[in-house]
Amino acid sequence: MTRTTPRKGLVIVNTGNGKGKTTAALGLLMRAWGHDLRVGGIQFIKSETAGYGEYRACERMGIELTPVGDGCTWLSRDMDETRDRALRGWEVAQQKITSGDYDIFLLDEFTYVMHYGWLDAPTVVDWLRTSKPEPLHVVITGRYAPPVLIDYADLVTDMTMVKHPFSDQGLAAQQGIEF
Amino acid sequence: MTRTTPRKGLVIVNTGNGKGKTTAALGLLMRAWGHDLRVGGIQFIKSETAGYGEYRACERMGIELTPVGDGCTWLSRDMDETRDRALRGWEVAQQKITSGDYDIFLLDEFTYVMHYGWLDAPTVVDWLRTSKPEPLHVVITGRYAPPVLIDYADLVTDMTMVKHPFSDQGLAAQQGIEF
Repeated sequence: MTRTTPRKGLVIVNTGNGKGKTTAALGLLMRAWGHDLRVGGIQFIKSETAGYGEYRACERMGIELTPVGDGCTWLSRDMDETRDRALRGWEVAQQKITSGDYDIFLLDEFTYVMHYGWLDAPTVVDWLRTSKPEPLHVVITGRYAPPVLIDYADLVTDMTMVKHPFSDQGLAAQQGIEF
Repeated sequence: MTRTTPRKGLVIVNTGNGKGKTTAALGLLMRAWGHDLRVGGIQFIKSETAGYGEYRACERMGIELTPVGDGCTWLSRDMDETRDRALRGWEVAQQKITSGDYDIFLLDEFTYVMHYGWLDAPTVVDWLRTSKPEPLHVVITGRYAPPVLIDYADLVTDMTMVKHPFSDQGLAAQQGIEF
């Protein structure tokens, strides 16, 4: 297989209050992996113990997916620790993004880090604009995507929840699906 | 790893005019595969030669993903052939759905088969309601999801395009991303 270097890496944002933001990002990684692209990512907020299905899948596929969060922020008892982990995650992300080692890189749940004010959104976007290697695709997920990020992004999709089994029917989360 | 049989399989619909419907479905398959669930799917409309990234990824992962389409319907010169392939695809899908061989099964771009009137949506939903094994998750993607399907589904997400690189900037499709 030959690897084709894209002419312009895209900045892709999956936002909105619906399900499928991270899931669609995983699908992008999977498809890119099928093309022998070099795939990596960092999950900013999710628990290190949750998301087992995606971690195990990535491990089996040889995709590097690094968790830096300590669980749901709104459940966290120590916001300073949550914030510090997220900020360390951004430092790691900056190293990986500039490394040239990837064709597509995921910043999962990264919008929250800006939404909560832990990072300044215009500063993040300026950094991406000047430091992201031209051919690298970057995928960013999470609710509350800052307008400056939406302006900068090439592709923005808003996932809107029409119907949700947990809210509508009270079904418990299902292993292997875990929206 | 132990496989946990879900108590109730979910019917999941990804619809809307935005990107990420199939991609999010692929992410669901990937996550389920990470949980050692038995994963399969049929793509109803896409070309047998397109979607190379997802086919190669599924092949490498051991996920059965069967194409039945003969390309984009709106480019097809022979709608009868397109319709016949889709109808054969539904017969295959019905066999696979009732086989008990899967924990999660994808009907990709299946909404079009109903939207174009090749299959009657209420009949399809009645069949799913009575014939789908209780623990099986079914994922259906495509624009124009019929209201009767949305009523039946447990989880419905509408993907809305906020910004698209091809329409907004005229960028060519990128191998490995291929929205």
